[in-house]
Parts: sequence; structure tokens; C-alpha cells
Amino acid sequence: MTKRSRKKSAIILVSGGLDSAVALACARRDGFTCHALSFDYGQRHKVELKAAQRVCRAQGVASHRVIKLDLRAIGGSALTSDVEVPKDRDESQMTGNIPVTYVPARNTLFLSFALALAEVTGARDIFIGVNAVDYSGYPDCRPEFIAAFEKLARLATKAGDQGAHFKVRTPLIKLSKAGIVRLGAKLGVDFSLTHSCYDPVRGKACGRCDSCRLRLRGFVNAFLTDPIPYAKP
Amino acid sequence: MTKRSRKKSAIILVSGGLDSAVALACARRDGFTCHALSFDYGQRHKVELKAAQRVCRAQGVASHRVIKLDLRAIGGSALTSDVEVPKDRDESQMTGNIPVTYVPARNTLFLSFALALAEVTGARDIFIGVNAVDYSGYPDCRPEFIAAFEKLARLATKAGDQGAHFKVRTPLIKLSKAGIVRLGAKLGVDFSLTHSCYDPVRGKACGRCDSCRLRLRGFVNAFLTDPIPYAKP
Repeated sequence: MTKRSRKKSAIILVSGGLDSAVALACARRDGFTCHALSFDYGQRHKVELKAAQRVCRAQGVASHRVIKLDLRAIGGSALTSDVEVPKDRDESQMTGNIPVTYVPARNTLFLSFALALAEVTGARDIFIGVNAVDYSGYPDCRPEFIAAFEKLARLATKAGDQGAHFKVRTPLIKLSKAGIVRLGAKLGVDFSLTHSCYDPVRGKACGRCDSCRLRLRGFVNAFLTDPIPYAKP
Repeated sequence: MTKRSRKKSAIILVSGGLDSAVALACARRDGFTCHALSFDYGQRHKVELKAAQRVCRAQGVASHRVIKLDLRAIGGSALTSDVEVPKDRDESQMTGNIPVTYVPARNTLFLSFALALAEVTGARDIFIGVNAVDYSGYPDCRPEFIAAFEKLARLATKAGDQGAHFKVRTPLIKLSKAGIVRLGAKLGVDFSLTHSCYDPVRGKACGRCDSCRLRLRGFVNAFLTDPIPYAKP
């Protein structure tokens, strides 16, 4: 048996964004064989799936699945319907309120798929790049949510029924965006491969949606330069 | 405002099987406006989706969505891969063990979609026809699983964050299969529209898989006749 095949496997949710690229780097740092999972869920910023592919290739994952699911049939979010993505909001407007870019039950869905794949592959660890500090107001990024999902995972599965404990690993949950950028830089993440913008302009990041603004502020506060191109205003 | 529009809405998971047809009838009995949700998940018994349509039409739902999702990309079950469906097992072989027809994290996934739709439509109730008595060994049919999901639902959503409590209603959870048949008969469910078989033979129920055997036994114990045709042995 080779050394590689003895490594423990983990499922990593990789969106193509900056945070999940750093979460993937953390899983590799922790010695896991990485099985990446992305979702083609009708997001208007579908270009992030190409970024997910680049990130997975650059970091040498063992497998990368893209699951197609039609969240547009459910709607209710600026990311999956024709509601406009908010622009030019300052920090006070971003925090405290859950924005229209919230996708109903998205992380619950994504983690459920990761759990199914974990059960099939024998993995017991799931990495997700959620963040409760600069979390943009999403309820399904909080530690309490993660703890509730872990409990559910044990009860929901055949493996859990037989004694397995699924661990949802959230290496970024307590970091600021600047902290995530610094950690990624330390782990050698190539940020130029990632995509964060909710509403790209001719293939370039808009620089104005909440996601772009959080990202840019993160780089500024980390005293680093964001290598991706932004659309001219 | 008409009387109808004041009715509370519920999301009902309708597979096309006997149990979910009875669960839907319970939701109607309880006065809910019913939004049905079915899944085209690569199941080999895809014919159940036609049954779901018939059941929804017969019971007059307000809407019926079929969500396409590719569980074959994950695999791990006789229902979504080329593993053979077990046949001719007696009761002792069915209980206590989780069978190969278990689909990893299926009810977690289905409930997560129902939760997303509940949040978007303003529904706070989700009906699912799970059953912990004749439950065929599936872990995600237990009351503890349902309770864990309700807790997760409150933490996972914008609505939950704002104080909403999502209720997962399981009117069949403590009933025997015979009890479910009797309840359905009382509520006027047309069983001839439903489909339970995991492995249909030329469009007819095989009569030999766990699902067929549980169903047939349920009718026998309820002193009723199953109106659907079965394949000749």
C-alpha cells in the first residue's frame, strides 16, 4: 500500500471563490485526500464554476464533481432569479441584515450533498469555507448551524447509525476576510484563479457587489494586492 | 380576500408512493393549501414520477414542482446505480439492517429542498410520509432525525433567524403499513394511482422487492385489496 492510499479522505465544497480555495488549501495542509464538490445551481455568476475547476486543478484534488441542481425552480434569491444584486453598499449596510443574495437553505443543501458523497466514499470530514465574521448576514454560516448539521448527519446516515461521526470542518469561520487572505497567501493559494463577484461585467469582477467589496477590503486590510482584474467603473 | 387565500400553505414531499399519497391527504385534511415537491434523482423506478403527477392532480394541489438532481453522480444505492435490488426477503431480513436500496442522505436532501421552498413561499409546515415502524431500516425515517432537521431548519434560514419555526409533519411515523393503508382509505386516497415498486417489470410492480412486499402485507393486514396490477411471477 502506498503512502497516498492510506491518507484519510475529505469532501471539500469548492465554489470557485476565494474562501473555498483557502478551505481546500487547509484540507491539503491537514493531510487529507481531497474530493471536491461544486454546484451548478442556476447561479447568475456561473463563471465561478470555471474558477472552481482551475482551483481544483491547481491544488491537485483526487476528484472534482459538479452537481447540477435547479434552484431556479425554487427562486427567492438575487443569485438565482431576476432580483437585482445590490451595489456600492458600505459595511454598515452589509452587516445585520440578510441580503437579497441569500439563497434559501443553500448551505443546508450543499452540505447534504457533501454528506451523501462522504457516506459513499467513506470520508468522515467535510470542509466548507463559511465565515461568521465577515459573513455578509447569511444565517447558514454560523457555528450553531454547523453544529446542528453535524448532529443531523449522524442521525441521517447509515454510517452514522453504525457509529461514524461526520465532522464539518470550518477553518475560516472565525477569521476576518483579511485573515482568510493572509492564511491563503501563507498556504500558497493562487488567488488569481478565484472568482468572487456576484454580478460580473463582461467576465470581470464588478467591484461593487457585497462580495467584491468584502474581498477588496480583505486584501487592503491584509496589505496584499488582489491579482484579479476588475471592470472599470 | 377569499377563504382559500387565508389558508396556511404547506410543502408536501410526494414521491408517487402510497405513503406520501396518504401524507398529502393528511395535509389536506388539516386544511393546508398544498405545494407538492417531487424529485427526478436518477431513480431506476422513475415511473413513480408519473404516479406523483396523478396523485397530485387527483388531490388538487396548488402547485407541483419536480426538481431534477443528479444523485447518480454520487451513487452508493441500488436505487441509483447498477447494484441489484434485493427480492423475496421476508420480514426478518428486512428489519434491523439498512438495505442496499438506502440512498445516502436522501431525506436530508429532500427536506432541504422542501425547506428552501417553504422559505420562499412563506410555508412553515413540511409534510413527509416517513414511517419508523415498517421503515425498512432507513435511518432518515426516525423521529430523532426529524427533530434534528427541525432544529437545523430554524438555524439555517433567514425566516428562522427572524423567529419562524419550521415544523416537519410526519403523520405516518408511528403507523404500521396496515395503519397507513387504513388511514388512506378513510381519507379517500385512490391507491390505484400510486406506485411503490423499486424494480418494475414491464411497467408493473414486481411484487418481490422490499417495497412491494411491505405494501402487499399492509393491504393484507388492513383487510383491503391492493388495486394496482402486479407482474406475474
